[in-house]
Amino acid sequence: MPQFDLPRRLVAETLGTALLLATVVGSGIMAENLAGGNVAIALLGNTIPTGAILVVLITVFGPVSGGHFNPAVTLSFLIRREITIGTAFTYVVMQVIGGIIGTWSAHLMFEQELFQLSTHIRTGGGQWFSEGMATFGLVATILGTLRWRPEAVAYMVGLYITAAYWFTASTSFANPAVTIARSLTDTFSGIYPAHAPGFILAQLVGAVVATIIIGWLVFRPSELK
Amino acid sequence: MPQFDLPRRLVAETLGTALLLATVVGSGIMAENLAGGNVAIALLGNTIPTGAILVVLITVFGPVSGGHFNPAVTLSFLIRREITIGTAFTYVVMQVIGGIIGTWSAHLMFEQELFQLSTHIRTGGGQWFSEGMATFGLVATILGTLRWRPEAVAYMVGLYITAAYWFTASTSFANPAVTIARSLTDTFSGIYPAHAPGFILAQLVGAVVATIIIGWLVFRPSELK
Amino acid sequence: MPQFDLPRRLVAETLGTALLLATVVGSGIMAENLAGGNVAIALLGNTIPTGAILVVLITVFGPVSGGHFNPAVTLSFLIRREITIGTAFTYVVMQVIGGIIGTWSAHLMFEQELFQLSTHIRTGGGQWFSEGMATFGLVATILGTLRWRPEAVAYMVGLYITAAYWFTASTSFANPAVTIARSLTDTFSGIYPAHAPGFILAQLVGAVVATIIIGWLVFRPSELK
Amino acid sequence: MPQFDLPRRLVAETLGTALLLATVVGSGIMAENLAGGNVAIALLGNTIPTGAILVVLITVFGPVSGGHFNPAVTLSFLIRREITIGTAFTYVVMQVIGGIIGTWSAHLMFEQELFQLSTHIRTGGGQWFSEGMATFGLVATILGTLRWRPEAVAYMVGLYITAAYWFTASTSFANPAVTIARSLTDTFSGIYPAHAPGFILAQLVGAVVATIIIGWLVFRPSELK
Repeated sequence: MPQFDLPRRLVAETLGTALLLATVVGSGIMAENLAGGNVAIALLGNTIPTGAILVVLITVFGPVSGGHFNPAVTLSFLIRREITIGTAFTYVVMQVIGGIIGTWSAHLMFEQELFQLSTHIRTGGGQWFSEGMATFGLVATILGTLRWRPEAVAYMVGLYITAAYWFTASTSFANPAVTIARSLTDTFSGIYPAHAPGFILAQLVGAVVATIIIGWLVFRPSELK
Repeated sequence: MPQFDLPRRLVAETLGTALLLATVVGSGIMAENLAGGNVAIALLGNTIPTGAILVVLITVFGPVSGGHFNPAVTLSFLIRREITIGTAFTYVVMQVIGGIIGTWSAHLMFEQELFQLSTHIRTGGGQWFSEGMATFGLVATILGTLRWRPEAVAYMVGLYITAAYWFTASTSFANPAVTIARSLTDTFSGIYPAHAPGFILAQLVGAVVATIIIGWLVFRPSELK
Repeated sequence: MPQFDLPRRLVAETLGTALLLATVVGSGIMAENLAGGNVAIALLGNTIPTGAILVVLITVFGPVSGGHFNPAVTLSFLIRREITIGTAFTYVVMQVIGGIIGTWSAHLMFEQELFQLSTHIRTGGGQWFSEGMATFGLVATILGTLRWRPEAVAYMVGLYITAAYWFTASTSFANPAVTIARSLTDTFSGIYPAHAPGFILAQLVGAVVATIIIGWLVFRPSELK
Repeated sequence: MPQFDLPRRLVAETLGTALLLATVVGSGIMAENLAGGNVAIALLGNTIPTGAILVVLITVFGPVSGGHFNPAVTLSFLIRREITIGTAFTYVVMQVIGGIIGTWSAHLMFEQELFQLSTHIRTGGGQWFSEGMATFGLVATILGTLRWRPEAVAYMVGLYITAAYWFTASTSFANPAVTIARSLTDTFSGIYPAHAPGFILAQLVGAVVATIIIGWLVFRPSELK
């Protein structure tokens, strides 16, 4: 695989995260507009596009930057020493910026006010436990698939998030950059800004726990009999 | 493929079955909460996540433990002498424990009572025949795909269960550990505990019949002309 | 690939067609029961399982028998001289028998009368043109994928039928054995028996036309510059 | 890969675009007929078939003609000098003709008037920005996947369009031939003819921008460290 220079890697992270958020926020607006009040149908119309675009984005941008689009994933690779702390920091900054660009792109497409703040209440122990589990599962999916079937990571992440939208009480943000970007839209997928830190903390805890447990489970076969 | 030690194999079975049940029960709660009484939409919101997570879990944990997550599958491999009876027994114990942990995780995420007993009636000849066929099909899918396209087992199991949720009158439990764990939730996906044994018996019969018929059909090509 | 004896090939065709019909008819019953009168939701609940099970059945039984499950497909291979007329005849007989077993299995699962005749009107030029196009597309999908990506045939047939359920006015039977078997169920997926011959004739015409056109398009690259 | 003569390439482009439009327009009619006024359900019934058929059509016809089915994609390959201007011109002509044949086929199947003009209003800055972004993403998907995983292009295009139906305010036409063909149907998927030029201009701009940016991002790794 070619080694890419840092500018291209940062463009890939920014563009990928922007297109991810355009999809999450845009499909949320579309789905809510059309669903006639049936929230399950709206969530289907939000889930299917998000799962699909993740497969595409990781396939297209993954070979350039790794296709993180997610500070929790970057943190996991940092713990595993597969990225330097300096590069990790620039990744996270660009993921957050890309996410915000994506949210605003969705607002432009749907002719909404560019700058919004969400009023969508998402807090409490069940929500935080959900985000911890969601991010644990996401990092487990990435690390396990990278170990056995690296060419399938894009598909597994798309399928995992498709499931996690529904099995968690929080609809699985599982991504601090996504959480920040979704605090800036007062639509279906938004989160009240003051509730974002609780989500982000739970996500980082889930990512760290998964990195340790799955690292032990799948990455030291040489010691095994 | 690396050979894993028993502790790692049991952790993989436990964690995989737990995440499977968290998805089945959690997405059932979410889907019913949102579907506004339309049960077909709720079942879609239960089916799609279950099919998707099965692909992920078998991909991530399969290389460690085989990715059974299901005593009926373990029984089939025991009949085929691909697992020892001692290991099979520990697998089944951990699958049941993992399943219960998964159900309880879903309850925690959705802020429900941890300990519940289902009141969902699921009994009668049609239901039992459904479970027998569902498990026959599941074991046929696993054995046939392992024979021809072992790298595709995860996808085929996910697709098979997606279909079986709808073509059986029982929504295809097809798994004794799942049946026990679902008796402990009084939500969309539950089963009244006294009806669990009928389901489990039908599942084991279906698994045994499939192991014999599909074994004859696909596993002895050397004798064929 | 191992060469299988005729008994195993016929069991594969029979079992595969039976499971296909159990899925088509069973998911139709389930979907209509749950959809609360919204036919689009019911059709989704019929489409997704049918597409999914086709991928599984062709993967599992394809290496044994070719995975036709469909007299129109067998006819196409007969025209292309890839099956003898005697074997083709036994295939078609077992596909029809398998299909009927599948319909009756669905009736047993849903505790319906075993023997039924459909009253579902499906006739007229639009329906026949739909069946012709549907089968043209199915045979084009099979022949084209076999030419370029034989390992992907199962996925392509599943995806094609998923689309064809919706883009044709007839919901794409595209299969004479399926048509006969569906005339024997008075549920969502049924067809009034007297309307079956029109469907079957249109299907056979579509299969023949596709065999000729796609054969010309993709199978003689050696003459091309 | 065999080199095909121009007649076969043009038949592949025409037939592929015709089947694409038959699916887009036909599934739109079916979905709207059945959805009982819930537009989100109708859009699901339009999205899933379109995504599925794209995977099939690019797999079946791609090895013959490249599987463009889209003047914006042909323009991108023309800019990248992977197709001559003469061939590109004949491609575009046949794509438009194929698209119209596809729309009319859908009308025939659903027993509608063959010749229609849409009255569906689709105009304004949000719609144009949507079409620009949709086509940018489509061309990025194609170029990026061709660079890294050429065998996966069919899947990625199907998944991308599945997402883009929902994340854009315009439901992502992203294709001038599709836009022209959809101006000729006064059904769910139509577009008022006078609004087609705005869509087409936005699509061409999106395609050009993506060709430049993604070309820079992924196609010159030899210069990179």
